[in-house]
Order: sequence, then structure tokens, then C-alpha cells
Amino acid sequence: MAEIWKGSPVAAAISETLVKDVEELKAKGVEPTLAIVRVGERPDDLAYERGAMKRAEKVGVRVVNEVFPEDIEEEVFFKELIRINTDPDVHGILMFQPLPKHIDGVKARAMMDPAKDMDGCTTGSMAGVFTNTAIGYPPCTAQAAMEMLHYYGVEIKGKKAAVIGRSLIIGRPVAMMLMHENATVVNCHTRTVDVPSITSKADILIAAAGVLRSVKPEFTNPDQIVIDVGINWDEEAGTIAGDVDFDAVEPVVKAITPVPAGVGSVTTSVLMKHVVEAAKAL
Amino acid sequence: MAEIWKGSPVAAAISETLVKDVEELKAKGVEPTLAIVRVGERPDDLAYERGAMKRAEKVGVRVVNEVFPEDIEEEVFFKELIRINTDPDVHGILMFQPLPKHIDGVKARAMMDPAKDMDGCTTGSMAGVFTNTAIGYPPCTAQAAMEMLHYYGVEIKGKKAAVIGRSLIIGRPVAMMLMHENATVVNCHTRTVDVPSITSKADILIAAAGVLRSVKPEFTNPDQIVIDVGINWDEEAGTIAGDVDFDAVEPVVKAITPVPAGVGSVTTSVLMKHVVEAAKAL
Repeated sequence: MAEIWKGSPVAAAISETLVKDVEELKAKGVEPTLAIVRVGERPDDLAYERGAMKRAEKVGVRVVNEVFPEDIEEEVFFKELIRINTDPDVHGILMFQPLPKHIDGVKARAMMDPAKDMDGCTTGSMAGVFTNTAIGYPPCTAQAAMEMLHYYGVEIKGKKAAVIGRSLIIGRPVAMMLMHENATVVNCHTRTVDVPSITSKADILIAAAGVLRSVKPEFTNPDQIVIDVGINWDEEAGTIAGDVDFDAVEPVVKAITPVPAGVGSVTTSVLMKHVVEAAKAL
Repeated sequence: MAEIWKGSPVAAAISETLVKDVEELKAKGVEPTLAIVRVGERPDDLAYERGAMKRAEKVGVRVVNEVFPEDIEEEVFFKELIRINTDPDVHGILMFQPLPKHIDGVKARAMMDPAKDMDGCTTGSMAGVFTNTAIGYPPCTAQAAMEMLHYYGVEIKGKKAAVIGRSLIIGRPVAMMLMHENATVVNCHTRTVDVPSITSKADILIAAAGVLRSVKPEFTNPDQIVIDVGINWDEEAGTIAGDVDFDAVEPVVKAITPVPAGVGSVTTSVLMKHVVEAAKAL
């Protein structure tokens, strides 16, 4: 029977610190402000936006909702994005992606100052994660996985970590962040041969492949910490579920994060942390 | 007894292709041009510069030597760098680093267009290596290691690779490049516990720790390909030597690159390849 590590206490601990930081900033006349840029009305975006706004309210971060119609002209959208990016009262930007197909995402990201890039999507933020320097911010989900490890007191230095998945949103950045904290990291992916033989030797397993319940007991070991970053729709059960087959894996590992109520619950707190850092850096 | 894989045939093969590319470019009125920016007279820089100029001559790349005194004022140097960077006749820049202490290296690198950054030192190039997109160029040495694998027909996809060392010049970028070619990569470093137990399971071992003869037989296995990227000064022998204890390891692995005459011999060819690519991209 594993310890089940929920995200809510982690989120609460981060938020608690942020509340104080925001008070201090406001005393200095700075109101930390996040612009949420959304094009269209995708249900996922709307759900995350609601969550982010709720969290923002809790910690005292101001949110400016920049909502544009799905069919906005590219040129018009770019002008708006430049306006938002250069607005001195906006400390951070969260831009939902992918953008509609008629808008060039590469160009749009290039218009964002990495210093305002709260979710690690710019070239500067990517280089920052790769080089471990303070350019931009890492993707919130990748950092949320790290916050889980920190909060629950996992020693990272000198440990073996395995990451399943190599996306730019979670797999690759979290592998880098683990290495920057001196873990020895192996990054598995779709072309990896015999994944269980590799991941079962790790002290820390980050499941971020985006494949429903694909991580089975043979991927793990009894001393392993399993961080499940997957958010998949389980058609049969009509609910979201993780990359880890929780019912099968939970009995055989040391600790595991559930889905839902795990890493996903920490993401908006990390987003707010980035906004506060950006406001402080002003 | 291992196959001993030298760098010279790899360099020759790259150069041969480049000669044709350069002819085609010149027929179109484009003379591929590399600016070598050197501050001071460091012996290592001078040695590499000579090698690069020799290679450039062989393939038909024009070199502009931009040499500045060690005590050049920062402001003056920056103006020169901007001039070089904006010169339309300069396709690529190799800037020797580290720069003298009174010159801010971060600022200097930020002045270079990643499209002219022939040795992967800019933020854009780093992000390019991390994200596997065509922003800038990877560091020449990291790519030289990959060129060795390609030339000697090593299958990378689905193989296990271990990289020792996590520098931004070789360890981290080569780990990324191996993963982009679908190897499963583990990146070992100074805080890794029991390196031999990890590296000995790899099909491909990249030794890039910069520690003289630190890779011993127990780090390897009989089917392993060993690419030695180390260039260390052996005080006792009065010569350069690799990270791998060649005499001990060579008898027990499948293939190995020597030092000198291994990966190091390929670096200037990769540099010229980047210049030609930059000239083509014009």
C-alpha cells in the first residue's frame, strides 16, 4: 500500500506563501497581473481558465481576460498580442494553445517576452529550462511535478529518475529540471525498447506519456515514487484518469499521486507563483 | 579488440560534400563566409583557429579574422560584434569563449543572431537543440560526435545511449540529439551514483566529462560503441588524451574513437557545414 500524495496540500502551501508575497507587492503599489489570452471557446481552455481565476482570486492576483473570437484575423490577433505583451501593467501572460490553424503559433510565441511567458512556451523559456538559467519560466505542469517531489520531501540528488514521455510541455522539461537537481535521468519515449526494464530501476518515475493507464506494476518497484502527470479521458468510466494504472500500481509502490487530485491540482498555483515572480522581477 | 574509428574519414566525407555545395553557392554569387572573433591570444583559440582556417581553405569557405586585443573596452567590443553580426557578407560567426572577464559573455551572446551562431552558444541555438527545431546550430563538438555515429553506420533508433557529462557544449546537447534520433538516453554527471552500473548497460557511450582516462572497462560492455569526446592534457605523457582509458577499454568494446585523431578531427568540418548551411539559408 502506497502513500497517496494529493496535490491540494502542495497547492495550499504554495498559495499561502503567495498571499504574503502579493500583500508585500501591493504595499509597494504593484498589483501582480496575469493576462489570460484565449482564442475561441474550447472546453478544456475554459475549464482551466476557471480554475486559474479561482486560484488567482485566492492569492490576490489580478486577472485580465483577453478573449478573442475563433475566426479573428491573424494580423489583428498579433496586434492585440503585442499590445498585451507591451502593457507595463501586465506581468505575465498565459496564452492557450494550440491557436486556431490560421494563426501562426511560432510567430505568436515569438511575440511574447520570455519574462512574461508564464507557461514556458517561448524559445527563451525553453532555453532557460535546458541551460538552467533564469530566462523565462518552465511549463507549469513540469514545475508542478517538481513541487510535488519537494513538498513530500523526496531527495532528488543522486537518485535515479525515469521520465516516460518527451513532450515540450512536460517530459523534456521535467527531465531537465530533475537533472538540474542532480538526479540521473533517463527519458523514455515511444521508440524506447522495453520501457519497464528501464523504469523499474528508477527511484522516481514521472509518467507523462499521455496514454491512459499504460504504466503497469512491472514498470515500478516497491521503493518507487510515482508521479502521474497524465490527464486522459476514460471513455468507459466517463471520467479523467492518469497514465498510471492506479489500482494495479498503488499496492506495489512506495508513493503515488492520484489523477484527478494529484499534480493537476498544483498547476494553477505554480502559474500564480510565476506571476508573482514576474511582478517581483519588475 | 575494438574497431578503432578515426575522425579523418568522417571529416573528409563531410568536406567532400561541402566542396560541391560551395561551388554551387559561388556559381550563384554567394561566397560562404565565416567570421572568427577572437579576443586575446589564448593558445587553445589560436590552435583551433589555425585548424578551422585550414579546413575552410580546403572546402572554399572564406574566413574573416576579427581579432581584438585582450584589454579591448567592453563597449567597443560590443560595437564591433554588432557590426560583424549585421554584416550581410558574413554568414556565420565563431566567437571564442570565454571572453575576458571584463566583457559580459551573456550580453555578447545575446548580440549574436542564432542564424549566424555556428557553434551553438546563443539562447536560440540552445532552444533549437532542446526542441529539435531549426533555430541556430548545435555546438560543433556535439554534432561531431553524432557525425561519427552516422558515418560508421551505428543504428541509433531504439538503442540505449549513456552520456557522461552534462555541459552545454557537449553533454546536454548530444543527449538531446541522440534522443531526437530516438535513442533512449541517460545523462550521467558528477552527482550520479555508481556510473559504471548505468553506462555498462548502454549500446552507445558518449564520454564527455572532461576527466582524463576516467572511463574504465567496467563502464563498458563488449557490444558497446564508445565515442570519446574528452580532450585532456596528460601532464605525465606531455600529450592530449581522452576521457576514456583507451589502452584498457579498447580490448573490451566493439568500437572506440581515439584521442587525438577521433571526434576532435571532425569538429572543424562540422563548423564549415554550418557556415555552408547558413549561406544556403540566405
